[in-house]
Amino acid sequence: MILTVTLNTALDLTYRVPRLTPHSSHRVTEVTERPGGKGLNVARVLAALGHESTVTGFAGGATGRALREQLATAPGVRDALLDVAGATRRTIAVVDAESGDTTQLNEPGPLITPDEWSGFLASYEQLLPSAAAVALCGSLPPGVPVGAYAHLVRAARAAGVPVLLDTSGEPLRRGIAARPDIVKPNADELAELTGSHEPLRATRDARRRGAHAVVASLGAKGLLAATPDGALRATPPAPVRGNPTGAGDSAVAALLAGLVENTPWRRRLASAVALSAATVLAPVAGEFDREAYEDLLDRVSVTEQASAA
Amino acid sequence: MILTVTLNTALDLTYRVPRLTPHSSHRVTEVTERPGGKGLNVARVLAALGHESTVTGFAGGATGRALREQLATAPGVRDALLDVAGATRRTIAVVDAESGDTTQLNEPGPLITPDEWSGFLASYEQLLPSAAAVALCGSLPPGVPVGAYAHLVRAARAAGVPVLLDTSGEPLRRGIAARPDIVKPNADELAELTGSHEPLRATRDARRRGAHAVVASLGAKGLLAATPDGALRATPPAPVRGNPTGAGDSAVAALLAGLVENTPWRRRLASAVALSAATVLAPVAGEFDREAYEDLLDRVSVTEQASAA
Repeated sequence: MILTVTLNTALDLTYRVPRLTPHSSHRVTEVTERPGGKGLNVARVLAALGHESTVTGFAGGATGRALREQLATAPGVRDALLDVAGATRRTIAVVDAESGDTTQLNEPGPLITPDEWSGFLASYEQLLPSAAAVALCGSLPPGVPVGAYAHLVRAARAAGVPVLLDTSGEPLRRGIAARPDIVKPNADELAELTGSHEPLRATRDARRRGAHAVVASLGAKGLLAATPDGALRATPPAPVRGNPTGAGDSAVAALLAGLVENTPWRRRLASAVALSAATVLAPVAGEFDREAYEDLLDRVSVTEQASAA
Repeated sequence: MILTVTLNTALDLTYRVPRLTPHSSHRVTEVTERPGGKGLNVARVLAALGHESTVTGFAGGATGRALREQLATAPGVRDALLDVAGATRRTIAVVDAESGDTTQLNEPGPLITPDEWSGFLASYEQLLPSAAAVALCGSLPPGVPVGAYAHLVRAARAAGVPVLLDTSGEPLRRGIAARPDIVKPNADELAELTGSHEPLRATRDARRRGAHAVVASLGAKGLLAATPDGALRATPPAPVRGNPTGAGDSAVAALLAGLVENTPWRRRLASAVALSAATVLAPVAGEFDREAYEDLLDRVSVTEQASAA
């Protein structure tokens, strides 16, 4: 199985309103609710690709219970979340039906106690031996040490399990130094890490900081990767329009699948770009259009980047 | 005990954000959560005034469970809510920390099935004999017939239990024709019912439609009542500043307490105005400042209105 870690899980709500007008009252015309946090999204996509996945991290309170109940209905995803005293956060995406624009409201995560954190570490160590790969995803809730991902990367490496890291800020900076197999920053996270807004330079710089491979997501422009096979750029055949929610998580799922199947880097990147685009095209946020995925797979262009720098 | 009916209960969330900017992302700095819906608020205030209260209506789904868990910690309030298959709605008040202004997002209520509605009617009939008074509060969730309150008013009257109705629109129009003891519209609801924006005329018109007494809440201006003792106006000694959330529910609680204690109308109205103002003054939404209440009680002016019209 593939293990995904989501320390700051969330119950993701989407509210559709005719038009969001600050300081007035709105009837929400449509509510959708799904278990969220990057690692949970990654696990669902992995399961849809035929990979058994296990999710771990924290869940608590009434929102945590609701999240776990809904997760129980996701086929191919095993719940190994740990109960905590604090309440799992909600995130609310308020979609303006008129413009399609989204206003995001994110609750803070629950405070994790030192005992809860120790409990997680023990459980993670027990899960590692049966994992073919591990993904460490998203932000850290309050109370979790900022070096948490560095610790989890080292534990995975010690157990001989390849590890992908998808986070930002200081947890990314510390985590990358622990030498994960793959990091997947977006353009903003990469610039924050390296100080460079030039993607190729920044991707290579990030790799020098310790990651075996860096795959930077550049939104509609595809992916840019600094790998042991050199620098590669993967671009969709044409720009796609739709809902970008979950596109980055689908790319992570494809990279993990490529990692455990040990497919060549060119193929991994093509698959990640095709799956991202097929996620943007799907009508439901976070799901992917399987037909579009199969169709795009052979049409993604993967080119080598000049080996300067 | 006093029975309050809330067919469309809600889990009321308050989010504090530095500043709400549409189409951007916000970290919520503070989350508060409480069981809501007018009848639940009324019951809590009644309990604080020393009256045992029982709440009934519907609760369902994860939000319904959270609401009932939190309600279980409210002293003096007995939970007689009925489980339904649909999920209790959430309401979200997004408070802009900069301006103090609030943006409200209200989910739709759960769809109530005909069987669930029949089950409620049976349970309501069983609760009535032990009730000293009944309050019917708030909007109707989808699936509940628009004449629901008219039916519940008639059942209360048949059981000899005095009944107060606090709703709006068509459910108010139909409910008032069933001759409740008190209706408590606000100025907008009164204007919608009667077509008149002249409060005294509209209050008297509403009474002619069937209510034994009409108490119209005019916000900071106090209350205007058409009662068997004539038309009375109750005004706070000075305007109060604060959070008006729950002020109307506090007025309902005071009117119910007056009803079961059979205090004279002048005293009931003075108490309702004082309790409303003390609710606006309390730092926590929906609670009241007991000292302010005691102080205001003798300083509310109650005057008779000219008997024209």
